[in-house]
Amino acid sequence: MNLIQRSLWDRKSVRAFQERLIDAQDKRAILLSALQAPSAGNQLLYTILDITDEALKARLADLCDHQPFIARAPMVLIFVADCQRWQDAYEIAGCDPRPPMAGDLMLAVVDAAVAAQNTVVCAHSLGIGSCYIGDILENCEQVRELLDLPLYAMPAVMVVYGHPTDQQRLREKPPRFDPRFIVQENAYRRLSPEEHREMYLERERAMGREHTDYDASVQAFYRRKYEAAFSREMSRSVQAYLEGFYPDDDGRF
Amino acid sequence: MNLIQRSLWDRKSVRAFQERLIDAQDKRAILLSALQAPSAGNQLLYTILDITDEALKARLADLCDHQPFIARAPMVLIFVADCQRWQDAYEIAGCDPRPPMAGDLMLAVVDAAVAAQNTVVCAHSLGIGSCYIGDILENCEQVRELLDLPLYAMPAVMVVYGHPTDQQRLREKPPRFDPRFIVQENAYRRLSPEEHREMYLERERAMGREHTDYDASVQAFYRRKYEAAFSREMSRSVQAYLEGFYPDDDGRF
Repeated sequence: MNLIQRSLWDRKSVRAFQERLIDAQDKRAILLSALQAPSAGNQLLYTILDITDEALKARLADLCDHQPFIARAPMVLIFVADCQRWQDAYEIAGCDPRPPMAGDLMLAVVDAAVAAQNTVVCAHSLGIGSCYIGDILENCEQVRELLDLPLYAMPAVMVVYGHPTDQQRLREKPPRFDPRFIVQENAYRRLSPEEHREMYLERERAMGREHTDYDASVQAFYRRKYEAAFSREMSRSVQAYLEGFYPDDDGRF
Repeated sequence: MNLIQRSLWDRKSVRAFQERLIDAQDKRAILLSALQAPSAGNQLLYTILDITDEALKARLADLCDHQPFIARAPMVLIFVADCQRWQDAYEIAGCDPRPPMAGDLMLAVVDAAVAAQNTVVCAHSLGIGSCYIGDILENCEQVRELLDLPLYAMPAVMVVYGHPTDQQRLREKPPRFDPRFIVQENAYRRLSPEEHREMYLERERAMGREHTDYDASVQAFYRRKYEAAFSREMSRSVQAYLEGFYPDDDGRF
């Protein structure tokens, strides 16, 4: 395993940070690494919001499913999937652009996520931990107002960064599902009930849990992650963002 | 700049490959690096399709805006944003799950893109080039049938990999827009017409184009990238995928 692979393997999410600022040079390197990521047509279909205002951070921590550690992160970036910038550019150049649509947004979300992952890898190489906050997809109306987001922009991901505490640095990275369930050849194949149980229980055993009851454990996860209020709010909120990306009734699509 | 940063900076898209297979060990390393990426709740909300069938590759090359180089890539992966696997798991465990919705899909798209970027970084560290193919979002109905995708799955990104030709290895990486236009503090601010022109023409100059006419150049880009048939098809197709993620009229949302 080369040093870069090692780094990808070692990197794990960090949710508790030392009270230590990220120095300006490291911060700049992390930000610049985003722009070095691949991007559809070299368009950089995102805007990165560097959240430095402490009150704003606290507000976001609350809007992102009430996670106080977000407010304590020394560096917080929001990767906004941005179809507004090019829309404006086209208008300024005298085009009569069609409105951005769902496909444009999806391409921008991928651009934003790919750029975010470059910052995560770069930060790790500098000894700086990070954590993705998917909850930034929630509360469309309030987040939009708070960040002055125009119609054709959606916050795709938020990432928080900071120097990990020793506890965080030393904790084990959670094991993944076995690749034989995740990688398939040529066509998609739904897993059988037996494979589902095997996939889940294998990972449980890798975490030292020898006697997990599949049904009870998955049901508990379901209630915590999928049936939970934040998850339903996320889907309502994303639908609200998407509404801006549907063609009008003027049939231009 | 450390070795990892250097690698992120050096990596550029590769669209012409040597006629040389990727050896099994490298391929496995690339696939495994995907699973090491961060994932919401460690759910791995994606399935990776390893496209090894040559006829299928050729068909996909055609469906992805007719780009023959895709069919010549020795390794082709499709990162499917997968809300089906957990839906099935929940049912198998005896939950009565709500259907996946737009927010679940968006989270899965981010998971898939972040995993894809890990493979791109890992491949580069092994001397293997790569190129994202956003066009996999097009032609929903045909792609779905070709890959046997169930309702709650959408191919978020395709990436092709191979050893770069010398020409590709030596070509310059296209310069990015200056970060002062892409990174903003605390709130989103739409750029002024002057800033738009500056941003675009600065990048033109960095590519050795001293005399670009802004309007003409952006209009040409607009026609090629945004008003083009593939781009409209992408939005139609993504809307078709999204239709599967809207709540029924039974008011369960």
